[in-house]
Amino acid sequence: MTLRYLTAGESHGPALVGILEGLPAGVPVDLDAIAHQLERRRAGHGRSPRMKFEADEFQVLAGVRHGLTIGSPVALVIHNTEWPKWTEAMAVEAPEDPEAVAQTGRGRPLTRPRPGHADLVGMQKYGYDEVRNVLERASARETATRVGLAAVARGLLDQLGISVLSHVVRIGEVAVPEDAPPPGPGEQERVDDDPVRCAEGATSERMQERIDRAKGERDTLGGVVEVVAYGVPVGLGSHVHWDRKLDGRLAQALMSIQAFKGVEVGEGFRTAEVPGSKAHDEIVASEGDYRRLTSRSGGLEGGITTGEPLRVRAAMKPLSSLTQPLRTVDVETGEEAQAITQRSDVCAVPRAGVVAEAIVALELADALLEKTGGDSLDEVRRNLEAFLGSLPRA
Amino acid sequence: MTLRYLTAGESHGPALVGILEGLPAGVPVDLDAIAHQLERRRAGHGRSPRMKFEADEFQVLAGVRHGLTIGSPVALVIHNTEWPKWTEAMAVEAPEDPEAVAQTGRGRPLTRPRPGHADLVGMQKYGYDEVRNVLERASARETATRVGLAAVARGLLDQLGISVLSHVVRIGEVAVPEDAPPPGPGEQERVDDDPVRCAEGATSERMQERIDRAKGERDTLGGVVEVVAYGVPVGLGSHVHWDRKLDGRLAQALMSIQAFKGVEVGEGFRTAEVPGSKAHDEIVASEGDYRRLTSRSGGLEGGITTGEPLRVRAAMKPLSSLTQPLRTVDVETGEEAQAITQRSDVCAVPRAGVVAEAIVALELADALLEKTGGDSLDEVRRNLEAFLGSLPRA
Amino acid sequence: MTLRYLTAGESHGPALVGILEGLPAGVPVDLDAIAHQLERRRAGHGRSPRMKFEADEFQVLAGVRHGLTIGSPVALVIHNTEWPKWTEAMAVEAPEDPEAVAQTGRGRPLTRPRPGHADLVGMQKYGYDEVRNVLERASARETATRVGLAAVARGLLDQLGISVLSHVVRIGEVAVPEDAPPPGPGEQERVDDDPVRCAEGATSERMQERIDRAKGERDTLGGVVEVVAYGVPVGLGSHVHWDRKLDGRLAQALMSIQAFKGVEVGEGFRTAEVPGSKAHDEIVASEGDYRRLTSRSGGLEGGITTGEPLRVRAAMKPLSSLTQPLRTVDVETGEEAQAITQRSDVCAVPRAGVVAEAIVALELADALLEKTGGDSLDEVRRNLEAFLGSLPRA
Amino acid sequence: MTLRYLTAGESHGPALVGILEGLPAGVPVDLDAIAHQLERRRAGHGRSPRMKFEADEFQVLAGVRHGLTIGSPVALVIHNTEWPKWTEAMAVEAPEDPEAVAQTGRGRPLTRPRPGHADLVGMQKYGYDEVRNVLERASARETATRVGLAAVARGLLDQLGISVLSHVVRIGEVAVPEDAPPPGPGEQERVDDDPVRCAEGATSERMQERIDRAKGERDTLGGVVEVVAYGVPVGLGSHVHWDRKLDGRLAQALMSIQAFKGVEVGEGFRTAEVPGSKAHDEIVASEGDYRRLTSRSGGLEGGITTGEPLRVRAAMKPLSSLTQPLRTVDVETGEEAQAITQRSDVCAVPRAGVVAEAIVALELADALLEKTGGDSLDEVRRNLEAFLGSLPRA
Repeated sequence: MTLRYLTAGESHGPALVGILEGLPAGVPVDLDAIAHQLERRRAGHGRSPRMKFEADEFQVLAGVRHGLTIGSPVALVIHNTEWPKWTEAMAVEAPEDPEAVAQTGRGRPLTRPRPGHADLVGMQKYGYDEVRNVLERASARETATRVGLAAVARGLLDQLGISVLSHVVRIGEVAVPEDAPPPGPGEQERVDDDPVRCAEGATSERMQERIDRAKGERDTLGGVVEVVAYGVPVGLGSHVHWDRKLDGRLAQALMSIQAFKGVEVGEGFRTAEVPGSKAHDEIVASEGDYRRLTSRSGGLEGGITTGEPLRVRAAMKPLSSLTQPLRTVDVETGEEAQAITQRSDVCAVPRAGVVAEAIVALELADALLEKTGGDSLDEVRRNLEAFLGSLPRA
Repeated sequence: MTLRYLTAGESHGPALVGILEGLPAGVPVDLDAIAHQLERRRAGHGRSPRMKFEADEFQVLAGVRHGLTIGSPVALVIHNTEWPKWTEAMAVEAPEDPEAVAQTGRGRPLTRPRPGHADLVGMQKYGYDEVRNVLERASARETATRVGLAAVARGLLDQLGISVLSHVVRIGEVAVPEDAPPPGPGEQERVDDDPVRCAEGATSERMQERIDRAKGERDTLGGVVEVVAYGVPVGLGSHVHWDRKLDGRLAQALMSIQAFKGVEVGEGFRTAEVPGSKAHDEIVASEGDYRRLTSRSGGLEGGITTGEPLRVRAAMKPLSSLTQPLRTVDVETGEEAQAITQRSDVCAVPRAGVVAEAIVALELADALLEKTGGDSLDEVRRNLEAFLGSLPRA
Repeated sequence: MTLRYLTAGESHGPALVGILEGLPAGVPVDLDAIAHQLERRRAGHGRSPRMKFEADEFQVLAGVRHGLTIGSPVALVIHNTEWPKWTEAMAVEAPEDPEAVAQTGRGRPLTRPRPGHADLVGMQKYGYDEVRNVLERASARETATRVGLAAVARGLLDQLGISVLSHVVRIGEVAVPEDAPPPGPGEQERVDDDPVRCAEGATSERMQERIDRAKGERDTLGGVVEVVAYGVPVGLGSHVHWDRKLDGRLAQALMSIQAFKGVEVGEGFRTAEVPGSKAHDEIVASEGDYRRLTSRSGGLEGGITTGEPLRVRAAMKPLSSLTQPLRTVDVETGEEAQAITQRSDVCAVPRAGVVAEAIVALELADALLEKTGGDSLDEVRRNLEAFLGSLPRA
Repeated sequence: MTLRYLTAGESHGPALVGILEGLPAGVPVDLDAIAHQLERRRAGHGRSPRMKFEADEFQVLAGVRHGLTIGSPVALVIHNTEWPKWTEAMAVEAPEDPEAVAQTGRGRPLTRPRPGHADLVGMQKYGYDEVRNVLERASARETATRVGLAAVARGLLDQLGISVLSHVVRIGEVAVPEDAPPPGPGEQERVDDDPVRCAEGATSERMQERIDRAKGERDTLGGVVEVVAYGVPVGLGSHVHWDRKLDGRLAQALMSIQAFKGVEVGEGFRTAEVPGSKAHDEIVASEGDYRRLTSRSGGLEGGITTGEPLRVRAAMKPLSSLTQPLRTVDVETGEEAQAITQRSDVCAVPRAGVVAEAIVALELADALLEKTGGDSLDEVRRNLEAFLGSLPRA
């Protein structure tokens, strides 16, 4: 019970809501920084026109006063600017004439579940006869809440010199070279300026071409994002119990992002292919510090941060809402049908990187607070510095 | 708080201890089945001679009466048959003459941390000046506890027709063909009979050769294991909140296994490479059921089981204790040194598959009980059958 | 992780926010019922004039569609109708001129902590130099969120025939007779009509007189409330692990209400005074059911509900904001001072009963869902009925 | 996830088992201290002869090396010295001839559930046709595990100058005077030497007489215990979220002790009877510290420790196993019957005080570690001292 959060909100409901509980007092909260992160989540080549009018109007309703956290839970509401169009179909209250609502465009039952989504299984699990109630919550729009809450948690990380950034390393078959170094601590803006948020110019162009081709083929594309965190202190997470291992916690958080199907830490699956003599990071003494000669571990050994940059990758499958829809069954008629189409993005990988980054920031903030304890930024900082100061020199 | 467990125990301590809390009453517990699972965890080509005398003598001390669970927490103790050799070095009580202990073989301070292990970071985090206290707990021997507890949880799954098996799909560069089907529900024994627990004869031979070569080179090998669960009902996990998604929970559990660096669900990272038209499982009606034409999703959509076989893969890095040790720093002298060597396995992937299987079984049992509630096997079964019976026919 | 909730919000901030996660789908949500519960929380003889303009305008922003829950987290926002007066003092953003704000009435530092409140300790814990940031969150206004969320959870209980009501059994020295029976299932309205929410007319009058006298003396009064739940099925909670015991969970929840200092189940402290022959409820068979001849246990044995009415009591201390203020220290000057005064209620016990009721409803809903599992109201009901139907007849 | 623990074990099973996870490294663990606490739990006037041969043989199997914790989970096994008598009735494995076992003394079905115990409700909840499987786990013998684990946690508290003690303040109608001061920090031994663990000589004698009389009447007695903790730093627990309030957490933990029916903090229920002017602790400055003139709050304001001694009381009902048994129903025959008798204590309040003390110690250790963070005793101490040093002087 260090840092925890709940999110709520349907894709076309009145608003998304998030509560983040457990931050110390005195952490600067910058509304522009929240807006910036929400904005980043919407960017990227290959996004549908819908994203444009999805501009996120939000309010911090609790936990922050005069620009600083006050130890209380932080509440964030992100309003749905399209809500006026959905007041009937998504009304909280029971409609007077349900039949009428069910015959309007937006209120019409959605009976052709999309493969690759929660649609069918959600319907079965929760006992529905159509999928609206499932897709509204399963939608990736929910991630806006997590990105918003993470923007607050990042205020804490910033103060302690920890920065988290992301970049796209694969879209479909197009990948950055294996030996390309990740962007450095100050390079997030440069990466964000790239239309596919790829750090490597030449690869970026090929990615964009690939997306454009997929669009022409009415197909979609997935990819892989990498999150890198700089300035992470040694000693977050623990080997003493399986659920304290930070790599496991990061893996859960990342895998829980919509459409993510794989997670790896450091070299990940590649480490499984090389011999032991090439799979680990040898330890050396350097200017009084213990350092690693390589960064294969991703900055995590035994579930604990090493003080080296943290690196995790996560794989996103292609969007399942194709403009050329997949085959499904109409649950009302039992007939073969084409799956419903909810949106028309070709590739959501660039913005998914921003979500992955947010997720990692939340987990790092949690692990940090477990290590340091403390109820105010000053206390957290003091405890962290005292710990780092106590480490024996190499 | 459905099913939860804690494990304790050091590698060379008197015993490993586990408590599994939350199982319903009336689940058959077969001590031979527990012994069998513990035995499977020790098997495999490439294991060190040490494994032979590691025969796990265990006791169930609580939660089971007359062969059935009674709703109470189940406690398992696995004794360390080598304990007599370690009574001084690992004594619970303070030694009368600490100096003397520190000069014996086993009690000697270990000051050359192994790259790729928790050794150095654990030492730093917990404030030690040598690594014994870290490696004792970080050791993969801990997984015996999880395998043992999972054997109890599998008693529940068995009763409901759910079986979980594993096989090795990669060792170093040697992998089973991408399109090779996983072993079927009854094939665990056949897989276990294979020296590297690979389901595919030709690949197995190449894997064994690869291991033998690595041994000659005094090197180690990692690999990838796949866990497949059959008979998993539709509707476990949920899309409604990130930490209810079963894929995320499986990812955490798998990534938390010692030396694991990657996890994927279904096609995983491969899904990121193919277009959307080839990445999802189209839905069809078949004899009244909704079925999928392919199994790319790994039996999980939106964090919920689909009723298709569940498939997850996890990547293990090569062991870092090489007989040809890696470079490190002696933390006592600050001099460059060769890392300590704790054991001499070449490849632990086959047995790690058994651990992965156990982990998946524990998570499935938890997700199942969340879905069904219930305090006795009868009640769990009744609720599950009623749910399945209520599903609309396709 | 069955039913969980987070609340956020400062007393004079823009709004209170709550998220309730884990309700099944299909539970009717009636906005009028929520409004009614929030209204009940504000009622009662002895309340300050402030309560009048505290009319709670709220919105359900997520988790409910067309009058029914959809399995998603439910989000509730309760707006602060006084917010316009507080936009400076409680602004989320950093003020341009902090000095100016600190000199306005509402923005002025509060440096005279009230005894009996979180004021001083909160200030010390979180590192503040005045108490505004503490009292804003520690305020009992937060309970409006819990009452609101509980109103949603009560929708589930209602459907299963479980009703939760409360009444005041003591105000100061004035208590209902020990042998007075609690109000019955249909009597909540009658109790609510009483100015002090006492079920017993004669005692109520004495309570009101006592309050009026305290008012004259510029003093405050505490008291004891009793919550009774009817229709609770046998078998909620468990004896198998300490933190599964329903009495313990109720005790935590009740003790966590602002100003509560004692909790008892059934006869509670009185049971400690009588011999064993008069402390338990003897068991008899009655029309095929096991029944108890008395109700001393409060409907809980071994941490499990017995099927008899559930009864818990909780003691509230007198409000510490007296119009005749208590002695304290001015933390700015170090001088002896009179504590700040935040409000002028004499007695908040009647409305605290409504909060206690809400708390109990939330815990019961949680314990119920642990027992039944299930993701839709139909499934919950089906599992519960099947369990009850399986109970052996006496 | 700071400090957590699971316990397992049946009253007549082979052993009790506990795992305590989350302690920092470097905490001294003294086996004699554990033995002493277990011994204290067995003492007291009014205990049955059985307690004599219940001498607890225990082993620490994990988490401690050379007298110090090592950050790993601590595992404790307490053997049942009577186990040889129970190997058949409580066998883990299915008996070859269940009929035969069911006809032996100890294996015989127990079909006459005791009022006031988990017997009947546990049987109903878990689907049994007799109560053996319930009473084995519901038994207060389980508390030995908690006392043992708490003895380890107390090692941490001791190092930080926090001591927790308990005394009996009521047995039946006999109570210590309301204004009697609690025993001081060094007085535990004196209290323990009293046959009923009462700090007040005159009252103790009356309590003993009362117990002797009850014994003559073949009746049982409950009572009230008080736990006092000295040296508790200011700032443990929090007001920011209901489940962080330390009073709530203490209430749950205490109420979860077998046979406990009431909990109060500080003056508790008495506070509900007095006016506000007499219910709070006025604040004064004293030698640079903020102090309270009285100790009505029990050292907790707003769910946070004040730095004053912590005081909680808990009420225990009389044992329900009377030698003059209560009326019940035989669940096999449906006939009226006399409840089974499991033991013959008259009053377990003195030893229950030791359990309450242990429970409080565990919660305090948890709350302390939440405040300080830290992975070694040195780090915990350093963080705590730095916090205390940062507090502004009064």
